[in-house]
Amino acid sequence: MMDDALRIVLVSPRNPLNIGAAARAMSNFGFFHLRLVNPYEPAFKEARSAVGARQILENAKVFDALSAAVADCSVVVGTSAAAHRDLHVPLYRLEAAARLIEERLSSCPVALLFGSEKFGLSNDDMSHCHYLLRIPAREEHGSMNLGQAVAVCLYELCREERAAENRFALPSSASAEDSERLTLLLLDLLTRSGYVNDRTSKSTELKIRRLMRRLPLPAPDAETWLGILRQILWKMHQSNHS
Amino acid sequence: MMDDALRIVLVSPRNPLNIGAAARAMSNFGFFHLRLVNPYEPAFKEARSAVGARQILENAKVFDALSAAVADCSVVVGTSAAAHRDLHVPLYRLEAAARLIEERLSSCPVALLFGSEKFGLSNDDMSHCHYLLRIPAREEHGSMNLGQAVAVCLYELCREERAAENRFALPSSASAEDSERLTLLLLDLLTRSGYVNDRTSKSTELKIRRLMRRLPLPAPDAETWLGILRQILWKMHQSNHS
Repeated sequence: MMDDALRIVLVSPRNPLNIGAAARAMSNFGFFHLRLVNPYEPAFKEARSAVGARQILENAKVFDALSAAVADCSVVVGTSAAAHRDLHVPLYRLEAAARLIEERLSSCPVALLFGSEKFGLSNDDMSHCHYLLRIPAREEHGSMNLGQAVAVCLYELCREERAAENRFALPSSASAEDSERLTLLLLDLLTRSGYVNDRTSKSTELKIRRLMRRLPLPAPDAETWLGILRQILWKMHQSNHS
Repeated sequence: MMDDALRIVLVSPRNPLNIGAAARAMSNFGFFHLRLVNPYEPAFKEARSAVGARQILENAKVFDALSAAVADCSVVVGTSAAAHRDLHVPLYRLEAAARLIEERLSSCPVALLFGSEKFGLSNDDMSHCHYLLRIPAREEHGSMNLGQAVAVCLYELCREERAAENRFALPSSASAEDSERLTLLLLDLLTRSGYVNDRTSKSTELKIRRLMRRLPLPAPDAETWLGILRQILWKMHQSNHS
C-alpha cells in the first residue's frame, strides 16, 4: 500500500497542539507512520489526546537523532519555508515534489521531514535530505503553522487532478412550454396586482417574457414555481370575492 | 485582484486557536477578507494575537446572521465533511469546487463557509449555499480541524497544476574519462589496501569498473571524489614511508 510507505517525521516539535494536529491530519488523509526526533517530552505526552488520532500517536516512534529516524527510508524529503536560500539541494514546489514522492512510494519508504515551529529544519537536518519542498505560500509570509503545513502536504499527496474535471451536469433547463405557462401566470398576477398598465400592456408582456427567458430555471423546479404562482392567484381571487 | 474577491466566513467558531489558525492560513496564501458569524466572543478576542495575521483579525467583520455575512456575495460555497448526505445542493470534491470558485472570483465576490468545530454547517446554513465542497479526507475520519481545513482549501485555490511539471534537470553524469580515472584510483587504493587478490585482480578490476559505472555520479562531484581518493592514496603512501 502506497500510503503505508510514507513516514512523517517531526524534528524537535515543541507544541503539543501541533503534534496532535499533525497526527489528526495524518488520520484524515490515511497516513499512519509518525516519527518524532527529540520532541519536547511534556508536549508529546499532552499531544496524545488529539481528536481521532490516538492510534497514530500511540504508535509514534521517538528517536534521539534524525539519522536514526530516517534510517530505513530510501528517500528523505525536507520541508522549507524559504523561497530563495542557498540550500545545496534541489528545492521543489509542493506540486512537483508530491509527484516525485508518489513515484518513489510505490517501491520504497520515503520520509517527509518537518522542522520545529520556531526554526524549521536546521542546515544539519537538511544535509540528510535528497531534496526539499516548499508549500507555495506568499513570500511575505511563507512560514506556516506546523499542523497546517502537514495537512497541506498530505492533501497534495491525496488529491486527484482528474477529480477537478468532475462537474455535476447542469440540471436541464425548463422547457419553452413551462416558461410560457409561467410567463402567462405571472402576467395574470401582475394585471390583477395593477403592475401592468393598460396603455403599455403589450410592451410589458414582451418585457416579462424576456425576463422569464433570461432566468435559467431548472426543469425540475418549474412545477414548484407554477404551483406557487397558481396559489397566489387563487388567494388573490378568493380575496376579491370575499 | 482575484484573491481579493474571496470572503472566508467562519460560522459560530468556538476556539480562539482555530480562528487564529484560519487567519494565519489566509495570510500565508494571500486572502484577506475574514468574516465571523456569531463567534464565541472571548475566543475572538483571544484569537487576535495569532502569529502574523493580526491585520486580518483586526479587519475581520462580525455578523449576527449568515445572510448578512454573505449579502454582497454572488456565490456562496459551503464546506462539508459528509461524503454521502442528502444535501439538496451539489456536493463537489475540493479539486472540482476550486475550479468553479476560481472562474467566478474574476467577476464577483464569492463566500467560502466553514461551520463550527463541533457541528459543521447546519441545514439552515447550507440552505444559503449554491453548492458544497468536500475535502477528500478518508470517509472513516473525514472531520478535519477547522484551521487545517481552511489551509487546505486556500492551498488548492493557490496551487498551480503546471508547477507539478517543474522538475529540476538531472545533473549531468560524470564523463567516461572521469569515471575511468576514479576507477583506476580506487583500484590503486584497493591494491595497496590488500583488497585486490593478485590471482583475481583482473576479474576484480572488471568488477570495480562495473561498480563505478552503476554509480550515477553527478558530473560536478567527480572532481571532489577524485580529490578524496588522491588524498587517501597520498596518506597511505606517507604512512608506508614514515
